[in-house]
Amino acid sequence: MKRVAVIGIGQTKFDEHWSKSLRDLSTEAGSLAVHDAGVNPKEIKALFIGNMSAGRFVSQEHLSSLAADQSGLLPIPATRCEAACASSALAFRQAYMSILSGQHDIVVAAGAEKMTDMRGESASAALMAAADQEWESAMGLTFVGLYALLTQAHMQRFGTTREQLALVSVNNHRNGALNEKAQFPFEITIEQVLKSPMIADPLRLLDCSPITDGAAAVILASEEAAKKFDNHNPIWIEGSGQASDSLALHDRQSLTEMLATKAAVKTAYEQAGMGPKSIDIAEVHDCFSINEILAIEDLGFCRKGEGGSFVEQGRIARNGEMPVNTTGGLKSIGHPVGATGVRQIADLVKQLRGDYGSLQVRGARTGLALNVGGSGATAVVHILRSDG
Amino acid sequence: MKRVAVIGIGQTKFDEHWSKSLRDLSTEAGSLAVHDAGVNPKEIKALFIGNMSAGRFVSQEHLSSLAADQSGLLPIPATRCEAACASSALAFRQAYMSILSGQHDIVVAAGAEKMTDMRGESASAALMAAADQEWESAMGLTFVGLYALLTQAHMQRFGTTREQLALVSVNNHRNGALNEKAQFPFEITIEQVLKSPMIADPLRLLDCSPITDGAAAVILASEEAAKKFDNHNPIWIEGSGQASDSLALHDRQSLTEMLATKAAVKTAYEQAGMGPKSIDIAEVHDCFSINEILAIEDLGFCRKGEGGSFVEQGRIARNGEMPVNTTGGLKSIGHPVGATGVRQIADLVKQLRGDYGSLQVRGARTGLALNVGGSGATAVVHILRSDG
Repeated sequence: MKRVAVIGIGQTKFDEHWSKSLRDLSTEAGSLAVHDAGVNPKEIKALFIGNMSAGRFVSQEHLSSLAADQSGLLPIPATRCEAACASSALAFRQAYMSILSGQHDIVVAAGAEKMTDMRGESASAALMAAADQEWESAMGLTFVGLYALLTQAHMQRFGTTREQLALVSVNNHRNGALNEKAQFPFEITIEQVLKSPMIADPLRLLDCSPITDGAAAVILASEEAAKKFDNHNPIWIEGSGQASDSLALHDRQSLTEMLATKAAVKTAYEQAGMGPKSIDIAEVHDCFSINEILAIEDLGFCRKGEGGSFVEQGRIARNGEMPVNTTGGLKSIGHPVGATGVRQIADLVKQLRGDYGSLQVRGARTGLALNVGGSGATAVVHILRSDG
Repeated sequence: MKRVAVIGIGQTKFDEHWSKSLRDLSTEAGSLAVHDAGVNPKEIKALFIGNMSAGRFVSQEHLSSLAADQSGLLPIPATRCEAACASSALAFRQAYMSILSGQHDIVVAAGAEKMTDMRGESASAALMAAADQEWESAMGLTFVGLYALLTQAHMQRFGTTREQLALVSVNNHRNGALNEKAQFPFEITIEQVLKSPMIADPLRLLDCSPITDGAAAVILASEEAAKKFDNHNPIWIEGSGQASDSLALHDRQSLTEMLATKAAVKTAYEQAGMGPKSIDIAEVHDCFSINEILAIEDLGFCRKGEGGSFVEQGRIARNGEMPVNTTGGLKSIGHPVGATGVRQIADLVKQLRGDYGSLQVRGARTGLALNVGGSGATAVVHILRSDG
């Protein structure tokens, strides 16, 4: 199979951006990626952008052509992909497949979301469109409520503790404290998590990723095209997997594992010819603390039910055996829902290049990203690797 | 390059479906396509669905996994694509590229929209999210208003007449009168068009495609996989092109041509090794009558400015030299915005199979579909061909 590389990355600061619009953020991230790659924008042949709900957040659908226009890339094909919080991992995957297909050789994949400009409804209400409207949203459930149910099930079945959950947030904030792009770049303590306001029992405020504005973009190139660019070592896409599950929790076969994650990572491992032991670092989808524990288990980093103690033993720390969310995760960096998938890829690329400054995990050569949509109805896994 | 075929098609009736939900419609179209292909659902490896704005129409994003679940296709990858009214041509194109990429061999591409369940705002307001929010929608423009501006420009520059515009709708209704899936399956006269209520000068009610609920789906297969299915002759995808332009009309280089259409069809013609003379029939995007005239010109069926007389001379009629919208077009069939692109493909496939009953255009072997998003900011062209 042909090889495809990531040759450029860009990310805005994740924050509440009161002075920047969705189009400003998208263009900023794209420009940074173009500059990082050293590519002439005229060489970019297609654009893929992940966005969950700009139609509701800022009354703007059709973001694909808008982003191409604002970035000076007309008349290239521009495609928006959406699968809730996994939207931009999907955009990245379509970008990857478009190069494998031979239709394009250099493309940009981006993700963007502007969540703080809501009028007339709350961001939480808009986000609930990612759950099952007829069976969940219309009944008054919220996402933290859905994840609280998953948390209760995991605690009951495996004895996962409230402290272990808190340690997920503590770990991610410890890393994010060093990340200048993070919305909340500071450390937190286990006590702070345990004393933060209850949102949906047992999840507290500091178990939850925030409402965020931001964008990220990466430039992908075919092996042949990548040779022309020497700003950085190319980082290769070794595996790509995507899978689906029911939107509604009541239809799931299991509440203590995410079957979509398991199916997606199986495909990605097979394609990469690797297993979990080959992964040096991982970016996983900690929209709520429980989801990082589920991810660690379902990706095969530890056995099912042992995610809580895996975290407690410090094995996900930057100097642990399996560093997870080494740049802060959704919790500390922030979670502009449609941007997170590509932000994860950009962070992995920076780690695998080996030039992440104080955030660098030494010797990391193979990284995995898991982006999850909704309460687990979409999972997208990518495995990246540096030759260098 | 590898060849990809369409081996199955399905479409719901396009209508106001007060007793069917978005998930009902999606599943119905998908089931029809699966049955038509004679494929075992277990052989389908991925789903791509076009939808413009279910988030606003029915408060449901994340339609991709929902459709996969409702169709019994879990855990396959499921991806929603959006570019306003061109959403499902994009889904079809991603499906096509996913097979070319070697990631999948049999996939389903669908489109669905449920537009009649709006609460709290009009469908027209939701549709305006496909235009430029900052420069157009927020100023009170509507889509018929935007297309009225394009119409005025065309009339002024080329002398296109009100009667020529009306004849677009007359032609499409003449064809649609024979289409049992059409929302408005009856003929109309030029007098009826000219006396229908003014919506945005010079466009009248019968120049405008309607608000519609509906879904369509097609099954795509690699050449090798297509050989296993003998329900029908496979219909081959010979060319695929997509291009973008600015959302806002004021940024366009021209108001009398759609540069995105010209760029998209150039790519598709080159890939297919054909020009407009090789096309036997075309499905084009007549959201408003002017857009069919623009399409005829920009696709190269006649010279720029001569679209009006081309229509007037009956050359787009079913027995004309270049039959256009032979099954009714958006005007007569209806326009569930996210479904139209795949509906066009399904109709072309039926024509190219040669089994469309009273709608059949005899001897049609090569067909072109043009799906347009917004006021022309996205254009997607596919060229299909029958070997038989």
